[in-house]
Amino acid sequence: MDTHIKAALKPAKPYEQNRARMLISCPDGPGIVAAVSHFLYQHGANIVQSDQYTMDPEGGMFFMRVEFDLPQLELRIAGLQQDFAEIADKFEMKWQLYPLSHKKKLAIFVSKEDHCLVELLWQWQAGDLDAEITMVVSNHPDMKEYVESFGITYHYIPVTPETKAEAEKQQLELVNGQVDLIILARYMQIVSPALIEPYRNRIINIHHSFLPAFVGGKPYAQAYNRGVKIIGATAHYVTEELDGGPIIEQDVQRVSHGDDVNELKRIGRTIERVVLARAVKWHIEDRILVHQNKTVVFN
Amino acid sequence: MDTHIKAALKPAKPYEQNRARMLISCPDGPGIVAAVSHFLYQHGANIVQSDQYTMDPEGGMFFMRVEFDLPQLELRIAGLQQDFAEIADKFEMKWQLYPLSHKKKLAIFVSKEDHCLVELLWQWQAGDLDAEITMVVSNHPDMKEYVESFGITYHYIPVTPETKAEAEKQQLELVNGQVDLIILARYMQIVSPALIEPYRNRIINIHHSFLPAFVGGKPYAQAYNRGVKIIGATAHYVTEELDGGPIIEQDVQRVSHGDDVNELKRIGRTIERVVLARAVKWHIEDRILVHQNKTVVFN
Amino acid sequence: MDTHIKAALKPAKPYEQNRARMLISCPDGPGIVAAVSHFLYQHGANIVQSDQYTMDPEGGMFFMRVEFDLPQLELRIAGLQQDFAEIADKFEMKWQLYPLSHKKKLAIFVSKEDHCLVELLWQWQAGDLDAEITMVVSNHPDMKEYVESFGITYHYIPVTPETKAEAEKQQLELVNGQVDLIILARYMQIVSPALIEPYRNRIINIHHSFLPAFVGGKPYAQAYNRGVKIIGATAHYVTEELDGGPIIEQDVQRVSHGDDVNELKRIGRTIERVVLARAVKWHIEDRILVHQNKTVVFN
Amino acid sequence: MDTHIKAALKPAKPYEQNRARMLISCPDGPGIVAAVSHFLYQHGANIVQSDQYTMDPEGGMFFMRVEFDLPQLELRIAGLQQDFAEIADKFEMKWQLYPLSHKKKLAIFVSKEDHCLVELLWQWQAGDLDAEITMVVSNHPDMKEYVESFGITYHYIPVTPETKAEAEKQQLELVNGQVDLIILARYMQIVSPALIEPYRNRIINIHHSFLPAFVGGKPYAQAYNRGVKIIGATAHYVTEELDGGPIIEQDVQRVSHGDDVNELKRIGRTIERVVLARAVKWHIEDRILVHQNKTVVFN
Repeated sequence: MDTHIKAALKPAKPYEQNRARMLISCPDGPGIVAAVSHFLYQHGANIVQSDQYTMDPEGGMFFMRVEFDLPQLELRIAGLQQDFAEIADKFEMKWQLYPLSHKKKLAIFVSKEDHCLVELLWQWQAGDLDAEITMVVSNHPDMKEYVESFGITYHYIPVTPETKAEAEKQQLELVNGQVDLIILARYMQIVSPALIEPYRNRIINIHHSFLPAFVGGKPYAQAYNRGVKIIGATAHYVTEELDGGPIIEQDVQRVSHGDDVNELKRIGRTIERVVLARAVKWHIEDRILVHQNKTVVFN
Repeated sequence: MDTHIKAALKPAKPYEQNRARMLISCPDGPGIVAAVSHFLYQHGANIVQSDQYTMDPEGGMFFMRVEFDLPQLELRIAGLQQDFAEIADKFEMKWQLYPLSHKKKLAIFVSKEDHCLVELLWQWQAGDLDAEITMVVSNHPDMKEYVESFGITYHYIPVTPETKAEAEKQQLELVNGQVDLIILARYMQIVSPALIEPYRNRIINIHHSFLPAFVGGKPYAQAYNRGVKIIGATAHYVTEELDGGPIIEQDVQRVSHGDDVNELKRIGRTIERVVLARAVKWHIEDRILVHQNKTVVFN
Repeated sequence: MDTHIKAALKPAKPYEQNRARMLISCPDGPGIVAAVSHFLYQHGANIVQSDQYTMDPEGGMFFMRVEFDLPQLELRIAGLQQDFAEIADKFEMKWQLYPLSHKKKLAIFVSKEDHCLVELLWQWQAGDLDAEITMVVSNHPDMKEYVESFGITYHYIPVTPETKAEAEKQQLELVNGQVDLIILARYMQIVSPALIEPYRNRIINIHHSFLPAFVGGKPYAQAYNRGVKIIGATAHYVTEELDGGPIIEQDVQRVSHGDDVNELKRIGRTIERVVLARAVKWHIEDRILVHQNKTVVFN
Repeated sequence: MDTHIKAALKPAKPYEQNRARMLISCPDGPGIVAAVSHFLYQHGANIVQSDQYTMDPEGGMFFMRVEFDLPQLELRIAGLQQDFAEIADKFEMKWQLYPLSHKKKLAIFVSKEDHCLVELLWQWQAGDLDAEITMVVSNHPDMKEYVESFGITYHYIPVTPETKAEAEKQQLELVNGQVDLIILARYMQIVSPALIEPYRNRIINIHHSFLPAFVGGKPYAQAYNRGVKIIGATAHYVTEELDGGPIIEQDVQRVSHGDDVNELKRIGRTIERVVLARAVKWHIEDRILVHQNKTVVFN
């Protein structure tokens, strides 16, 4: 399908060659912004966007995202990183540098419900998700043909109680070192701790409720039974605690007594799609920092 | 204060003299709407608004709200009620008839936080809440002068662990038979079962979270700690289960990592005010039916 | 593509065989609801849902939507219509009866922007749009393969200033008598009056602004230049006046100074998709009545 | 009224003594953030919050808001300003420095509709608007007693076609040099150009529509006639063009065919209150920069 495949071949935009982003977190103190911005200026970089947030001016944590242009970035990035280590040491920073020319590699896990997958693929081929979708992994074969029409590899790995351990091993082998971000796009299986550990803060799940309300299974039925007047969806990083990881994004929609469980599911599908796609986009654009089970999102 | 006091004297609008509302619930079956509307037509009434909802067409519950004009309503209402009993019997209806000329009497319970009380008084004096505010009851004296400036009686009833039983007895004596609806406008005390029983589905509480998330105390601190991206408020009828009664209305507002607990409280105050006032307005306008811990709201 | 094609073959649900909807509008007066509901009761129908609205109780217009079950509907519908004519005459009603077993036939017109088309096809194959999509008409060939993968006919009709008249003639021949509803899913051509006339209140357009703000071309650029803080989209029936027809549905999204025109377009695409799909769904479900360039929507 | 008057006496919080904010706008170029943050660091200031926005990285405008703590600010502010002039010159900056200890002085203009005034006074006495309300000016005497109960001076200046010129002169004399911000809280008179000129970007008006839709008089009637499904309100700085100044904030609420003009007004009042109060709060907190009839809002 021409429309779709052309997306996979989209070249980097010219300005991306020389643009990079830094994410920094450290204990707050005087002079951090000055040090970072002065460092970049001295190295010939021009700051395009800068965001910062201090949890508490006296003794709290400091978070920063800075996006900058640096001519001949590719040649100079190694030196830049080396030089920055000194500042990072001084302020006890955790930091990462992401050149835009390096596209993140994504794996999408999906079960039978296809709406989140379809949304991600549509946004991706429309150019709104600036990443490579490397593979789709599913415990069902249903979406194989559709996914392959985008030129994306589809791994069908059935999961039964007997084969679960083996399936998880297979999944880990597929993704490990190959992808930067795993997206659980309504993947209705619990993910193995063996996968969570190496992908800490790099697995995004969409939960079909307004967390922390309605943790666990059948959240729309739970919502119907409680008689809530608004339903929602929550994108969060996956941790060992079920539906308990750092929340990235949530959104909601008004419902009424007249909406039965099926109608809640129908309305919810659009919320889920939009919320998951936003969270993925922000992760791809390096807008999210995690601190103590909470996210700082610069957007 | 002239502006305020004039509100208390507002006369009924002419059309209200001959207008009434019926709320009906019964097991569903053929012919209910026909029977009710035919009955009203035969008695000379003109239906102004009619809403109905069937939980499940086959064997579910049927709910109806009908608003009608009937010339010389006051003279004919007793006969109307008598005649309707036959239909009600046939369809096993629970039903109530509310003439608009009978204004509901409200009691507002409040503690130190005044924003919900101020909102209700402002909407009331602006003519948006078509009821009588009969009294304000508080365990603090702070708002006495302000409330009395509207010509409303203020009962200061301190509540301490020792005096709680006595205070509740006093409250019950004040309201019982005197008021139609009790509003807990951020009244930070647990209400006595002795009050809940006679006022079943007639006590509205505002809880400062998006229920069922963050039941109980300090919901904004709970929300901050969980790192939610949206906060909310919930108006519900009070039952014996804390924050567990039928939900009437909810609303939400987006927040960010940058909002600390105090900022959540500030944002939340506006949500609380608006949600509580809507729920009160709908109750006053007989728009709410309760069935098995859920509400049907015709609005 | 199996996933997609199966949707086209979806059979009617059993309950739909005996269900129908009526849309009624007439001058208000006493006894209308009684007459309609009594009529249905006498004919053995059970009202499943009934909505009504009176623009002004004294001398205004009355609008009603009633959904009912009638055993052996197919055999009895002709008689029902004949018998109802008497009531309709008496109250000067404009009315229509829609059996659910008759699926509406849709034609979707699209240009290069595919997001609204993709959304409609996705909702349709998910079973959320209860209609037949009979054809897609486009002045570009791009989406041909994709649309045909759903088993839907794709008509590529180029439009140039020279061929416009001929193209419009072709379009009219394609749809006339064949489809019940035309959807302009970001069809960037002005539609001919020859098409509007026979399809009055049966052509739905999505305009990519919050009408009446930003009528005409490039609404996102207009919105950017005016510096609005919220953007929106509007679904409306097409009339001879550009972007001036009866509004069916609108929705909005918050934006900021940081969003340039491309970002507004990206955000707007999701609003457009959702708003158009809602309007189409409501039309399909016979929820919309039009009166003097305004809609009454029962939902 | 004790509750109210205590607000007027609220002392500055301790941290405010040493905190200040800078608003900067200039043509974009390399090194601006570095220069500003280095300057502040060298002078012993700690940046608490910093926001920036570049309209277009190549040759566009650069906007910055920086909030910082500087011990003994009061003694050092004059020197700070003097020293900063050098940087400002180099980058062709327009800039302003606001110490938090200097509370902005507000004048509120109001006509008969009191909801926006009541909201501002309530938020102010709740401590949410960190400013001094110096006076209320009105062409009606109605709110005099209420306003004075907060310890605020009330100037009743009637406006008739004959006295308009004289009234405007009186207003100008009252505010000029005395207040930092004028708020038109549903002040239903056109403001004189003689007032606009000295208060450019310092007069905030609330317009009761979602601008640019429904400019001018009776916007709710206009909205009703057009049949919109969402209504809104807009806070903007006042310019010589009616309802045409830079938009600060907008918000909206869903309405239906069932809402008549009075109901739109009622719903709209809550939108107006909230939108105006947000805009005023942002202005007070120095979050707004104006550029070519558009606002940059850092919040």
